Amino acid sequence: MCTDSKASAILLMHCPDKRGIIAVVSEFICKNNGNIIFLDQHVDEVTGAFFMRIEWDLAEFVIPREKIGEYFDVLIGQRYQMEWELHFSSEIPRMALFVSRLPHCLFDILARWKSQEIRAEIPLIVSNHQDLEPVARQFGVGFAHFDMTRENKAEQEAAQLELLRKHQVGFIVLARYMQILSEDFVRHYPNRIINIHHSFLPAFPGAKPYHQAYERGVKVIGATSHYVTAELDCGPIIAQDIIRVSHRDSVADLVRKGRDLEKLVLSRAVWHHLRHQVLVYQNRTCIFT
Amino acid sequence: MCTDSKASAILLMHCPDKRGIIAVVSEFICKNNGNIIFLDQHVDEVTGAFFMRIEWDLAEFVIPREKIGEYFDVLIGQRYQMEWELHFSSEIPRMALFVSRLPHCLFDILARWKSQEIRAEIPLIVSNHQDLEPVARQFGVGFAHFDMTRENKAEQEAAQLELLRKHQVGFIVLARYMQILSEDFVRHYPNRIINIHHSFLPAFPGAKPYHQAYERGVKVIGATSHYVTAELDCGPIIAQDIIRVSHRDSVADLVRKGRDLEKLVLSRAVWHHLRHQVLVYQNRTCIFT
Amino acid sequence: MCTDSKASAILLMHCPDKRGIIAVVSEFICKNNGNIIFLDQHVDEVTGAFFMRIEWDLAEFVIPREKIGEYFDVLIGQRYQMEWELHFSSEIPRMALFVSRLPHCLFDILARWKSQEIRAEIPLIVSNHQDLEPVARQFGVGFAHFDMTRENKAEQEAAQLELLRKHQVGFIVLARYMQILSEDFVRHYPNRIINIHHSFLPAFPGAKPYHQAYERGVKVIGATSHYVTAELDCGPIIAQDIIRVSHRDSVADLVRKGRDLEKLVLSRAVWHHLRHQVLVYQNRTCIFT
Amino acid sequence: MCTDSKASAILLMHCPDKRGIIAVVSEFICKNNGNIIFLDQHVDEVTGAFFMRIEWDLAEFVIPREKIGEYFDVLIGQRYQMEWELHFSSEIPRMALFVSRLPHCLFDILARWKSQEIRAEIPLIVSNHQDLEPVARQFGVGFAHFDMTRENKAEQEAAQLELLRKHQVGFIVLARYMQILSEDFVRHYPNRIINIHHSFLPAFPGAKPYHQAYERGVKVIGATSHYVTAELDCGPIIAQDIIRVSHRDSVADLVRKGRDLEKLVLSRAVWHHLRHQVLVYQNRTCIFT
Repeated sequence: MCTDSKASAILLMHCPDKRGIIAVVSEFICKNNGNIIFLDQHVDEVTGAFFMRIEWDLAEFVIPREKIGEYFDVLIGQRYQMEWELHFSSEIPRMALFVSRLPHCLFDILARWKSQEIRAEIPLIVSNHQDLEPVARQFGVGFAHFDMTRENKAEQEAAQLELLRKHQVGFIVLARYMQILSEDFVRHYPNRIINIHHSFLPAFPGAKPYHQAYERGVKVIGATSHYVTAELDCGPIIAQDIIRVSHRDSVADLVRKGRDLEKLVLSRAVWHHLRHQVLVYQNRTCIFT
Repeated sequence: MCTDSKASAILLMHCPDKRGIIAVVSEFICKNNGNIIFLDQHVDEVTGAFFMRIEWDLAEFVIPREKIGEYFDVLIGQRYQMEWELHFSSEIPRMALFVSRLPHCLFDILARWKSQEIRAEIPLIVSNHQDLEPVARQFGVGFAHFDMTRENKAEQEAAQLELLRKHQVGFIVLARYMQILSEDFVRHYPNRIINIHHSFLPAFPGAKPYHQAYERGVKVIGATSHYVTAELDCGPIIAQDIIRVSHRDSVADLVRKGRDLEKLVLSRAVWHHLRHQVLVYQNRTCIFT
Repeated sequence: MCTDSKASAILLMHCPDKRGIIAVVSEFICKNNGNIIFLDQHVDEVTGAFFMRIEWDLAEFVIPREKIGEYFDVLIGQRYQMEWELHFSSEIPRMALFVSRLPHCLFDILARWKSQEIRAEIPLIVSNHQDLEPVARQFGVGFAHFDMTRENKAEQEAAQLELLRKHQVGFIVLARYMQILSEDFVRHYPNRIINIHHSFLPAFPGAKPYHQAYERGVKVIGATSHYVTAELDCGPIIAQDIIRVSHRDSVADLVRKGRDLEKLVLSRAVWHHLRHQVLVYQNRTCIFT
Repeated sequence: MCTDSKASAILLMHCPDKRGIIAVVSEFICKNNGNIIFLDQHVDEVTGAFFMRIEWDLAEFVIPREKIGEYFDVLIGQRYQMEWELHFSSEIPRMALFVSRLPHCLFDILARWKSQEIRAEIPLIVSNHQDLEPVARQFGVGFAHFDMTRENKAEQEAAQLELLRKHQVGFIVLARYMQILSEDFVRHYPNRIINIHHSFLPAFPGAKPYHQAYERGVKVIGATSHYVTAELDCGPIIAQDIIRVSHRDSVADLVRKGRDLEKLVLSRAVWHHLRHQVLVYQNRTCIFT
């Protein structure tokens, strides 16, 4: 449901399942004059964990915005051992794009941004190559080039982190960035770096997945968008999709068909992330839409 | 989520949207020692209608089963002008299958029933032809043949209704039944007759949709499962799916490929119906899964 | 199969089916030192028509390029009453884009063009609005604005046709152009105007298909790319695809999800057209890929 | 294209690519009064191998059926170093079904067989359990039970092979047969044992793929039908398909949703095999449809 136009609060939470959580949380909102405009919950029967995304209209809510978190935590969160995060629809996230040489995901994201489908600030495009600087310029976004070698990696990543801090970047989208981020780098943006991998993971992780797919003779190829973790291509999956292929498709055809998947799947993941619809738990995601 | 094993109550409701409905309903359940195991809600922004499906564990629920509806209505339903229905997971619905000559949907449903995917009693298969009587016998289900002509239709439908009553049939599945039910017949089973139409409605309603699809040269064909209403092929859609086709596909190929769609889409609709996941409103459905 | 790198000839043909056509055509190519790199054929069993796309390497072909058509017609085409067209992979088609206000298809096509997925010249973007002029400029393509009213339509279309002639435009892509072309205009580009309609035709033709889809409560929405003919939204379909939707999706959500379909389906149609993979016959298409 | 009704010959071949193969083969058929009703070819650009499936009407073909192979080989096959196989549409293949305890694929295949979608003799159902004997009996097919232990495996497989020979079984369908066939067994039916694996291979090979998929948190699950080779779940893939899943889906839900995929994908593979549309080469398949 599209709720852009209203000032609303979004609470994502998880905790051990217990009777009455929904009642307590919805009463908290209701008693304070909030109107719930979205509620979806899930219980993991294996672990007994409870998950919820709840969004409410702030128009007449009596608790001041900057106090909601505190009140919620004291009155409810601590009692139920919740881990929670609170967002406001009025906050415009700031995202950085990391790219290498392939332009299709970059073009797609920037076009969505220009046509206001993606509601975010994009202060910065970072790249280990200079090829896509003209695209950045064409769309009026700053471009920072970091030449990466085995030797200078730690140093360059530090400089990147510094730059991201300066630009107050909240999350990073790897739009076909062909560099592996160090564990240290990833630690600065936990569940806030979105990657697109060009296979239906866990099949064909690592390099050249289309070549691998061709060799194996699969009849579908896929793309997977996931949060980046320390382990390569193993982070929590946000979105996946596939397309049918046949023996007629050369590797070049797979690459071409895959590009469409990559940009769609990446954009869906960015959409979910921007809407605070993603809850990560034990390397898996709940997507509340 | 699969909740078969537990005795639970399922409430489907809709009413004008108002602040506090979720809180009030979830508190009603919680205060009476029910544990909510499913809650999903939806607000139609156009009409301002609120929809909810809520399911809770009855193990320790203090209100006796046969009183839940009454209490709920007095305490909450009337106040919020709710239309609601209450179901219990322990009730095994009784369904009748209506067929003509094509066996694929019948085979598919009976196989799912035998392997206990479909949890229902099937007291009766009704047909306007005798071709599928051996299939009924093979699966040990009663078979009633009604020869239908323009002249005897009213009479035969009356006899069918009588038979359905006798067998306490709760809902009907038209598994490629090639007869149009009269408005009067339909009125006896409002939103309780599920049909499968072999096109992606509203494209190609009426007769011979695969021929129509072939003539039009479409690149996808579909199937649509919907509740039967007085107007042909216009009832609320429960499930739809499609499959890709090409110029190579003759009408016979479309018929063959379509069969797989038909049985899948029909079975999904039956699944949703059996789980009380379908809420009909203004000729559309909310499917809460 | 990707055959970009080689100079090849592509023959599209159809004729009444007769024994020996494939043998005769393939022998013609083979005897003259052509190496067949693609052959696909189809027989319409209903009409008895034979269709073929055949592509061969010209490297050692003995008939000079400008004589191939003549020789083929005299030696084979006339004898079998073929309708045929001959193309060369070395020819770069010239396409014009017609747009209105929505940028997503335009962005998508221009991005594919910039990254050389689309091998074509784009001398011109035509629009009845000025909104997308900046996009044209951003990508360095000429932009021609034609204000359209009921009164000036004939005149403006004449001016458009004149401009297209001047730019030697071979085919036109309507990238969400919200104007109905006159029958006369269409006659100048038979099977050479590609439109994208935002529904799975024949469902929801005409205006506001997403609103229609929402009203009908469908569980899938689609997009259809087709050649434009005199009758609105009734031309031969080149490509179609769908995406699943649910009761949660407002019209705005359908519009958003549909945009992704529209750009993909339109691009696939353009791809097939540019590769001369489309053969139109009786308002249907064979797509030889 | 559906060509059941006619007596036709089907030639599957592959050889090193060379100019003129199509011309030579199609001329062979044409000169001998055969009418080609299907021709599809493919060139693997990596290995330079040529593949073709060609089918022709035998009604007026001058070479007697039993001599076609010999003539073809002498006149063409040897010259081009072809590997080829010749089939006749009039031959009804004999297939054995191997099952364990899960009935859904067995039901599906038998229902297709009863309704004559599957044109084959089914002399025999083989199982390592007795659970599905009633299903076999219900459809009037013989059932052979082989109790399998680590100790008796070689012996039991020998007995199975003996039984298959006795029944002149041409190929085997493993319809969720939960036993690994020995390398020796497989050698008796090269590219003639079709398995269904309940994941989108190469993801999740081996045991309990739905549990693996659940653990990994994928957003799609799949099924893969492939020819059985000595290496587990690594044979040439014939058909694959997927279905979308979400965090709501428990393992039980994945199992249920997967069943529909399994039976569809397996049936598609059986269809291709029965129509002689599958050409295996270097552990991959060309599917000519």
